[in-house]
Amino acid sequence: MQSNAVFCDIMRVELIAVTPFPLVKQGDDIGSLILESLGSMGISLEEGDAVVVASTIVSKAEGTLIDLTTVTPSERALILSSTTGKDPRLCEAILRASKQILKVGPGPIIAETHHGFICASAGIDTSNVAGNNDIVCTLPNDPDMSARTIRAKLEETFDTRVAVIVSDTQGRPFRIGALGVSVGLSGIDPVWRYKGEKDLYGYTLNASVIARADEIAAAADLVMGQSNEGIPVVIVRGARYRRSEDPATTYIRDVQNDLFR
Amino acid sequence: MQSNAVFCDIMRVELIAVTPFPLVKQGDDIGSLILESLGSMGISLEEGDAVVVASTIVSKAEGTLIDLTTVTPSERALILSSTTGKDPRLCEAILRASKQILKVGPGPIIAETHHGFICASAGIDTSNVAGNNDIVCTLPNDPDMSARTIRAKLEETFDTRVAVIVSDTQGRPFRIGALGVSVGLSGIDPVWRYKGEKDLYGYTLNASVIARADEIAAAADLVMGQSNEGIPVVIVRGARYRRSEDPATTYIRDVQNDLFR
Repeated sequence: MQSNAVFCDIMRVELIAVTPFPLVKQGDDIGSLILESLGSMGISLEEGDAVVVASTIVSKAEGTLIDLTTVTPSERALILSSTTGKDPRLCEAILRASKQILKVGPGPIIAETHHGFICASAGIDTSNVAGNNDIVCTLPNDPDMSARTIRAKLEETFDTRVAVIVSDTQGRPFRIGALGVSVGLSGIDPVWRYKGEKDLYGYTLNASVIARADEIAAAADLVMGQSNEGIPVVIVRGARYRRSEDPATTYIRDVQNDLFR
Repeated sequence: MQSNAVFCDIMRVELIAVTPFPLVKQGDDIGSLILESLGSMGISLEEGDAVVVASTIVSKAEGTLIDLTTVTPSERALILSSTTGKDPRLCEAILRASKQILKVGPGPIIAETHHGFICASAGIDTSNVAGNNDIVCTLPNDPDMSARTIRAKLEETFDTRVAVIVSDTQGRPFRIGALGVSVGLSGIDPVWRYKGEKDLYGYTLNASVIARADEIAAAADLVMGQSNEGIPVVIVRGARYRRSEDPATTYIRDVQNDLFR
C-alpha cells in the first residue's frame, strides 16, 4: 500500500515513441499513419497528451519537397553560394523560402521564412528526404493548419482533447547545437505565463513567460533522434500546458522588441 | 503476453519529479537533500539517469546570493537603470556578474557572464530567493564543479554512473519565452554529433549537432515549473546521451563563429 501511495505522489512526464512508423510518401495522411502505429502498439491517446510530429514527415506528405535539378540559380543565389560554399541551387531554394536574409556567415544562411520563423537555411532540410541528395525539404506551407488536421483526426478517433505540435530541429545564436522547436501548433498555448502567480515564499512573480511548446518539442527530440532510428512521432504525456488556438508564430518577437535583428 | 511484448518495444523517456524537496538554505548539501527525497519516494537512481538540478538551489546552498541593500550603484549602473527601468542596485549586481554587456533594451540587459554564458541580467534571478525582494540570486560561481560534487555523492550512494545537469531558465533571441538550458554539467557531453551516421535512406549525414544537454534541461523544466510547485530536481530516465567530462561552456560559440554578437 505504501509504495502505491508514493507512486501516486510522484509527478511524471512520459515521452513515448510512436513506433514502428512507416516511411512517409506524398499524399499520405499523417493522422491515419499515427493511428495505425498506435493501434499496432496497443496504445490510446489520453486527455492532455501532446503529440509531437517531425515537420519533415508533414512536408513529405504534403509534397513540399524541391528537386534541385529543376532549380536554376539566380544571380543572387550565385553570390550567396560563393559566400557560403553551399550548392547554388540550394541557395536559390533558400531565397525562395525566405521573406528576408538576416545574416550570412562563411557557412550558415540565417533567414526569416515566409511564416516569420528565423532559422538557418530558411528551415530547408537536406537529409532524410527521399534517398536522393538532390531532393530537399522545406517547412510545411502552413504548419499550424497541418497540426490542426492531424489533431482533428486523432481527437475524432479517441474522443478526447489532445494537442499537436509540428516540430523542427533548429540551431540558435550563442550556443552550439540544435534542438527541437515548435513550428506548428494546435490546441496548445505556445507559452505559459506565470505573471501574477506566487513564488515559493508567497511573493507575486513579476513576469515569467515559459516557452512551453518549445520545451515539449525539445523533450520529444530526446526520443526522435536524427539518424536511422526514424522516430518521427512522440507522445508527451503528463506535461502541463494551457489550451489555445494561437499559432506557433505567436512566439516570434516583434522586430522592435528583438535586440538581435 | 502480447501486451507485455508491445510494452517492451515502446521507447520511453521518463521525467520524474524529486518531491517533496525542502527549501534550501546556505550550507546545505544538495546531493544529500536529493538522496533524502529519493529515499522518501522509495526510488533509486539507475544507470544513465540524468539528474537535473535548478541552479537557484545550488546558488542558495553555495551562498551566492546578493543582498541589494548592501550594494551601492556605480555611475554606470545608474545609466543602465535609467535606460532599462531596472533597480540601480540590481544593475550594479548585473555589471559585477558580467564580463561584458552585449545589448541593452528598454527592458532587458543581455550580458556575457564571467563563465561565458550570454543571457538576460547575467543570469541573476529576482524571484524565489529568500522571501525578500532585496535578495537576488546569481548563477553558481562554477556550475560544472557544483554538478561534479552532486554527481559524486549520488554515484557513491547508488554505485552506478549518472549525469548531473545544473539548469537555468533563459530567454533567447527571436522567440518569446524562456526555457530550461544547462549551465553546469558532469558526466554528459553537452552535444550529440550525428556526423558520419547514416540517415533513413542510408545517406551519410553531413553534420548534425544536437544540443542534447539543453534538450534534457528543457524537458526537465516541464516538471519543475516556476511557481509555487517548487520542484527543483528532476530525474530524466531513458534519454540517450554520450558520456563526457566537458564543461557546459563547450556550448558557447566562439565570437568569430557567432553571427549575432
